Amino acid sequence: MSSEYLFTSESVSEGHPDKVADQISDAILDAIFTQDPQSRVAAETLCNTGLVVLAGEITTRANVDYIDVARETIKRIGYDNADFGIDHKSCAVLVAYDKQSPDIAQGVDEGRGVDLEQGAGDQGLMFGYACNETPELMPAAIYYAHRIVERQSQLRKDGRLPWLRPDAKSQVTLKYVDGKPVAIDTVVLSTQHSPEMDQKDIHEAAIEEIIKPVLPAEWLKNTRYLINPTGRFVIGGPQGDCGLTGRKIIVDTYGGAAPHGGGAFSGKDPSKVDRSAAYAGRYVAKNIVAAGLAERCQIQVSYAIGIAKPTSVMVTTFGTGKISDEKLAQLVQEHFDLRPKGIVQMLDLLRPIYAKTAAYGHFGREEPEFTWERTDKVAALRASAGL
Amino acid sequence: MSSEYLFTSESVSEGHPDKVADQISDAILDAIFTQDPQSRVAAETLCNTGLVVLAGEITTRANVDYIDVARETIKRIGYDNADFGIDHKSCAVLVAYDKQSPDIAQGVDEGRGVDLEQGAGDQGLMFGYACNETPELMPAAIYYAHRIVERQSQLRKDGRLPWLRPDAKSQVTLKYVDGKPVAIDTVVLSTQHSPEMDQKDIHEAAIEEIIKPVLPAEWLKNTRYLINPTGRFVIGGPQGDCGLTGRKIIVDTYGGAAPHGGGAFSGKDPSKVDRSAAYAGRYVAKNIVAAGLAERCQIQVSYAIGIAKPTSVMVTTFGTGKISDEKLAQLVQEHFDLRPKGIVQMLDLLRPIYAKTAAYGHFGREEPEFTWERTDKVAALRASAGL
Ligand SMILES: C[S@@+](CC[C@H](N)C(=O)[O-])C[C@H]1O[C@@H](n2cnc3c(N)ncnc32)[C@H](O)[C@@H]1O
Ligand SMILES: C[S@@+](CC[C@H](N)C(=O)[O-])C[C@H]1O[C@@H](n2cnc3c(N)ncnc32)[C@H](O)[C@@H]1O
Repeated sequence: MSSEYLFTSESVSEGHPDKVADQISDAILDAIFTQDPQSRVAAETLCNTGLVVLAGEITTRANVDYIDVARETIKRIGYDNADFGIDHKSCAVLVAYDKQSPDIAQGVDEGRGVDLEQGAGDQGLMFGYACNETPELMPAAIYYAHRIVERQSQLRKDGRLPWLRPDAKSQVTLKYVDGKPVAIDTVVLSTQHSPEMDQKDIHEAAIEEIIKPVLPAEWLKNTRYLINPTGRFVIGGPQGDCGLTGRKIIVDTYGGAAPHGGGAFSGKDPSKVDRSAAYAGRYVAKNIVAAGLAERCQIQVSYAIGIAKPTSVMVTTFGTGKISDEKLAQLVQEHFDLRPKGIVQMLDLLRPIYAKTAAYGHFGREEPEFTWERTDKVAALRASAGL
Repeated sequence: MSSEYLFTSESVSEGHPDKVADQISDAILDAIFTQDPQSRVAAETLCNTGLVVLAGEITTRANVDYIDVARETIKRIGYDNADFGIDHKSCAVLVAYDKQSPDIAQGVDEGRGVDLEQGAGDQGLMFGYACNETPELMPAAIYYAHRIVERQSQLRKDGRLPWLRPDAKSQVTLKYVDGKPVAIDTVVLSTQHSPEMDQKDIHEAAIEEIIKPVLPAEWLKNTRYLINPTGRFVIGGPQGDCGLTGRKIIVDTYGGAAPHGGGAFSGKDPSKVDRSAAYAGRYVAKNIVAAGLAERCQIQVSYAIGIAKPTSVMVTTFGTGKISDEKLAQLVQEHFDLRPKGIVQMLDLLRPIYAKTAAYGHFGREEPEFTWERTDKVAALRASAGL
């Protein structure tokens, strides 16, 4: 008997308040890294009606105008009019950064602390995932959810649908039969819009111009569309909903198709394993699937603060592996250096490349800076596995 | 051949900065609900060196002194001395709440909007989980990680280890053989302490008085203990690390043993399905496992904003079910009303019960207010399943 179920993932546009916060945090990280890539950065952002708060811990030799970086980010996203909920020119920006705690720094710095290597910047667990549902080796639901809000933003910015405003959320429910996606059951799209627009016109444009062009036509059978189901979405952005850095961690990763360790990415320099080890986890899992060693691969790593070597590494292929999960775990240890410094070198992470990651997903995008999406370990993995 | 792997979860104490933020958000929700349980609340908190920011959206008839609630929460946690990183008497508290967007409210209010029922307060996906690894039907790693930091806090507050300070993090790595936990491989504990303490004394007390008393003795074979691995942890709390509401969502739930939909809990009234549907998901999964219908059960639900009926419901038992997952999904639809209003009634959620949830896990605790932990659907489920 064939088994059927529905699975749902969501995404949000760059104008969503939590994403505004993420993008400000990563723009600040990039501005700092442009001058001093040895900096320690944990930049958190809160944005609300007319207000941006920048807080966290930064130790750097860089000289950055944080307020200006925040305003420029809000402007780039498109909040350039007080009618849109926040305006880059007129909002308040409060800056309350402290330095990295010297007690933490001694555990992280190479040559100090209990472990003389560069220690992990925090304890924690991180997951990496890949599967063959799309050419990018991403789970299909989150992949298509991203494409919808990305297109919303495109049509807004290029003026084709000038009544669109920056804030939007998408959701895709896929129908699976025997473990494979076969159709799209439901698409939800809420998009901020200008007040004079009629909901009927919004519905039609959303379905025909935003959603359908980015979804596989053969999956659109009896698909239900729920467009702006509140009936009105004029107030949006940080005015409609307070935004915080690190509050879209499932949108940032695998849309619930894999577990998450809980650590956020944006605003964190790569000495924080929350970010760097999750990127490494994606790199490992993607290379294993790309090498044909499994159809689905999930890895969990964990760290103790101040210690370089992971406290655990677990690989799961859900019965799709060509070799056993234990063997794969050994291959991972041989081919990937998962100590913090090893990851930074392997993925070349001490560069100002983070602003781009902060909307539309950290994974499954073919951007040249996204070194963690490379499949350059495929040949070596296949050789070691005897394939 | 038997299969072996390591799996890791973490927890944090009530003095962890993100948890300070969560507890302030939920204390504010409770203070409002005590006067007006029909309120709409989305209370976000940021706390940093000497500073607390309260922001978000609140629509209420209650008259609450928010600053006082924030200070009292910080005091209760134990930050009552500027040497501990933040002091409830002397910190700055900024209040920047706005009202709930009227555009959102019209989708959520019963009798307005597109769906005339009470609509979901947001779109999104939520997971519920239960398994038979502990009597509370929780995954073992997160369960024991919670117990360690809970005991840290007990020994601090009752004065048995007076040099302990409020901030702490624990991490438990379990060894699994053939899918069952058999031993504890590694325990990490970092605890804030007074400056005069020697690390050797901290190590010994941590292992003998905090950790060992709460872990199963038969699982402590060749266990490795990593205690304060940075070598020093005097600076802590919001001074060492900026805290934000909703940044410990994996600690709040299943420790990475199940996926997460991404929505945070603290500060949100139960019209927000991020919270109420995740509680309902736990209730459903726990009752299924308690009924003996499966050894492990995971449920995913999803919603569209403004619409009452879930857009999808998926049940998985990983091959441990007594009946098929599709049959179980049908039983769930029959026995549980998963519309927002149905959940609120089923679990009696319009009460000021949330402060207690905001540290040591929302699930797997036998508190009388935690209605979502009840197993009162067991008989009905068994009867329907023909057991
Ligand atoms: C619904 S809000 C979360 C709840 C909110 N904090 C409150 O107090 O009601 C989450 C997101 O939904 C989107 N949103 C805002 N207003 C909306 C509306 N009127 N209709 C649909 N979606 C909306 C925005 O992307 C926003 O960030
Ligand atoms: C390491 S901090 C996160 C990184 C931090 N934002 C930074 O800029 O370095 C995360 C948590 O670790 C704990 N922590 C703080 N200081 C520590 C120390 N010296 N040793 C071990 N753990 C510490 C606290 O619970 C804190 O909230």
